[in-house]
Amino acid sequence: MKVVKFGGSSLADAGQLKKVKNIIDLDEDRRVVVVSAPGKRHSEDEKVTDLLIALGTSIQMHQMDESVYKKIIDRFQSMTEELDLSFHVAEQVKDKIDEAIELVKDGSEHALDALKACGEDGSAHILSAYLQKAGSDASYVNPKEAGILVRDQPGGALVLEESFEKLYSLRHRNEILVIPGFFGYTSEGELVTFSRGGSDITGSIVAAGLKADLYENFTDVDSVYCVNPMFVDQPKQLTSLTYREMRELSYAGFSVFHDEALIPAFKEKIPVCIKNTNNPAAPGTMIVADLPERESHVVGIASDDGFLNLYVSKYLMNREIGFGRRLLQILEDEEVSFEHAPSGIDDMSVVIREHHLPPEKEEKVVRRIKEELEVDTVLIEREMAMIMIVGEGMNQTIGIASRAAAAFREAEVNIEMINQGSSEVSMMFGVKSAGLGKAVQSLYRTFFE
Amino acid sequence: MKVVKFGGSSLADAGQLKKVKNIIDLDEDRRVVVVSAPGKRHSEDEKVTDLLIALGTSIQMHQMDESVYKKIIDRFQSMTEELDLSFHVAEQVKDKIDEAIELVKDGSEHALDALKACGEDGSAHILSAYLQKAGSDASYVNPKEAGILVRDQPGGALVLEESFEKLYSLRHRNEILVIPGFFGYTSEGELVTFSRGGSDITGSIVAAGLKADLYENFTDVDSVYCVNPMFVDQPKQLTSLTYREMRELSYAGFSVFHDEALIPAFKEKIPVCIKNTNNPAAPGTMIVADLPERESHVVGIASDDGFLNLYVSKYLMNREIGFGRRLLQILEDEEVSFEHAPSGIDDMSVVIREHHLPPEKEEKVVRRIKEELEVDTVLIEREMAMIMIVGEGMNQTIGIASRAAAAFREAEVNIEMINQGSSEVSMMFGVKSAGLGKAVQSLYRTFFE
Repeated sequence: MKVVKFGGSSLADAGQLKKVKNIIDLDEDRRVVVVSAPGKRHSEDEKVTDLLIALGTSIQMHQMDESVYKKIIDRFQSMTEELDLSFHVAEQVKDKIDEAIELVKDGSEHALDALKACGEDGSAHILSAYLQKAGSDASYVNPKEAGILVRDQPGGALVLEESFEKLYSLRHRNEILVIPGFFGYTSEGELVTFSRGGSDITGSIVAAGLKADLYENFTDVDSVYCVNPMFVDQPKQLTSLTYREMRELSYAGFSVFHDEALIPAFKEKIPVCIKNTNNPAAPGTMIVADLPERESHVVGIASDDGFLNLYVSKYLMNREIGFGRRLLQILEDEEVSFEHAPSGIDDMSVVIREHHLPPEKEEKVVRRIKEELEVDTVLIEREMAMIMIVGEGMNQTIGIASRAAAAFREAEVNIEMINQGSSEVSMMFGVKSAGLGKAVQSLYRTFFE
Repeated sequence: MKVVKFGGSSLADAGQLKKVKNIIDLDEDRRVVVVSAPGKRHSEDEKVTDLLIALGTSIQMHQMDESVYKKIIDRFQSMTEELDLSFHVAEQVKDKIDEAIELVKDGSEHALDALKACGEDGSAHILSAYLQKAGSDASYVNPKEAGILVRDQPGGALVLEESFEKLYSLRHRNEILVIPGFFGYTSEGELVTFSRGGSDITGSIVAAGLKADLYENFTDVDSVYCVNPMFVDQPKQLTSLTYREMRELSYAGFSVFHDEALIPAFKEKIPVCIKNTNNPAAPGTMIVADLPERESHVVGIASDDGFLNLYVSKYLMNREIGFGRRLLQILEDEEVSFEHAPSGIDDMSVVIREHHLPPEKEEKVVRRIKEELEVDTVLIEREMAMIMIVGEGMNQTIGIASRAAAAFREAEVNIEMINQGSSEVSMMFGVKSAGLGKAVQSLYRTFFE
């Protein structure tokens, strides 16, 4: 039994929905389908979810934007018409949107979530109707019926453990189930959405609950790339990855989806396959718990910009038991999360995402460090970038560090920081943002060409 | 005005004392002399301080070891005889030893410290008498008279701030002052010793208090080596170093003395010169606050064995605010000091000196980490060694990391850990102890040959 999830571009219009139907038809194990809201049809297009949010905001400001409303209704209408579905389907979608609009007008607490969820819900209604019309035994299944129970936190729902057992009972249904992604219900029956990109979360939860043999995630790329395509043209595609590698790679944010969405599936050790709706014959990328040893140990290069380095030095810091702990405590008190904290003898660098330490917090954090830790120096260096080379077993391989360091030298980019614990999965380098592209390209040449 | 300190081997016998006198005579700025207890005359010899400790212990066990007592008295006696000093000098030294023995017999609290201090005190009496006999204007100055006031903590005295002002007044005395190292007095007048190697502490305190132009530390090596001579035969000698470089180099413990002894001098920005009593014409090593930029950025390789790596991994650790802090808190609670803590996305390595986490503590620490942090893995890997390449401005130089990593590869030693903050002074590598020698040799070839 496979759980299949389709992303927004796979559901952008009637043409895409036909591809989706073909994919479902090709494999009778594809029995549970999770869908996103219709995405962009072309690069200048708007996503339905964005339109719904704009609409909701306009209503909250008591100036409902009728043009946005019309765009949304038209998107669904044109799809149902092109697919030659009964007008009831478009009506049904429209009714739900109108209902949510009324809730927003009333100012009820969960109204915006209900409106935002109409995109996915519409996709699910249309797809199930389309499958039925083509003769498949298919049903729309609302997340409430499916059993996706969440903790009440509008816009950032957290799934409750009991959901998984409830979902498992869906296995008994002998038909294709189409479930809208992105939202669940509280025990009081309120609709609450997950964080943005939440359809992936639903897909992963459903795959975990159903104990699927495979969770297929259909996107618009053939596979996960080994490097950010912003820096390297047509980079190597990855055919297989471990969960840990995937997690390190998506840390930097260039990957197809946020890895946290996959956690429920990972926890149940369900293999995940990233595939392309527009090229379903391509093998895609398999993400699994363990892999047999490979020839090359470096599988990918993750990189991200927008970090800062908080540098603290104090003569004889090393002799002060608790210094590092107290520095991290100050950051914790001020709710500044950090990424890494490499240290010298008498100094410590703390790598922080820039948005976690905005200027208004910076002043206080720096003052507290100066006063409470009586340090010699506190410096904040912004515009830093982090580059991570990723691969299971990598750090046990003689020469990887040497090849990586040589790549930086060839690129004439200075390594400001190196952080390699005894984890076998990654090695991190900090550079100035200006050198990021050059360094990544040089690393790519070193490890992949 | 220079403060000159002579180590144990420089005072081991009459021949050495003659060299010391010549060194003092050579430079009229050498006006304050701090001395250690007589050290070894040859490799099988015993240090007087070790003999005094053995004697004290035997007395405490009510079995005073007369043979040890005799050895001590003979050491001083033969020196005074060879130097042709009045028999009163040896008498005076013997009287003080006998006095301390009585105190130990009485079981008084500070008695052992008083006995241990007799080595340095004897050296100072003999040297001052010898200088006087040769016609110099010289005086023995007891630390109480000099004003070295300490906090009462037998065997681990801490100097009090007020000492420095008192010491400054010694500048007015127009003669050579000979001060025994290793001990000071509490405000109640009790003699308390510094930690082992405490003559260096006295020298540094005296240099700081007197605001000396130079603090000369005479040992039995020509200079500080750039690498542990255990691994490299006749390594390059360092002519100049900054305080920070010295501190990083002595971290690993192969250097001539413990860098902490130098702190009082460093704080007053007093230049320190390491010189050889047996070859005073050699330039020695100057240690200063700042240096003009040098051609090579790597000045030394520090290395040490006997570390362990505490490796902790937890899926999604990175999302838990406070994880790193809580891990360090557990170590702090259990009084385990750590050296470095490089981290990956979901794991953290903590480098600890093995003796700081003995097996009896290990069990508790591991259990607490498992229970309180709910981690996936806790591993302790012993027999680790740390290698540090040291040099001001080093980390701003493109290619140093690359050359270092290549050296490890050539030595076929895997780098288990790398820790480089944005400090400009050092870069740390963790390797398995078995690979330490090979790696250090390869780094030496890379940076110094």
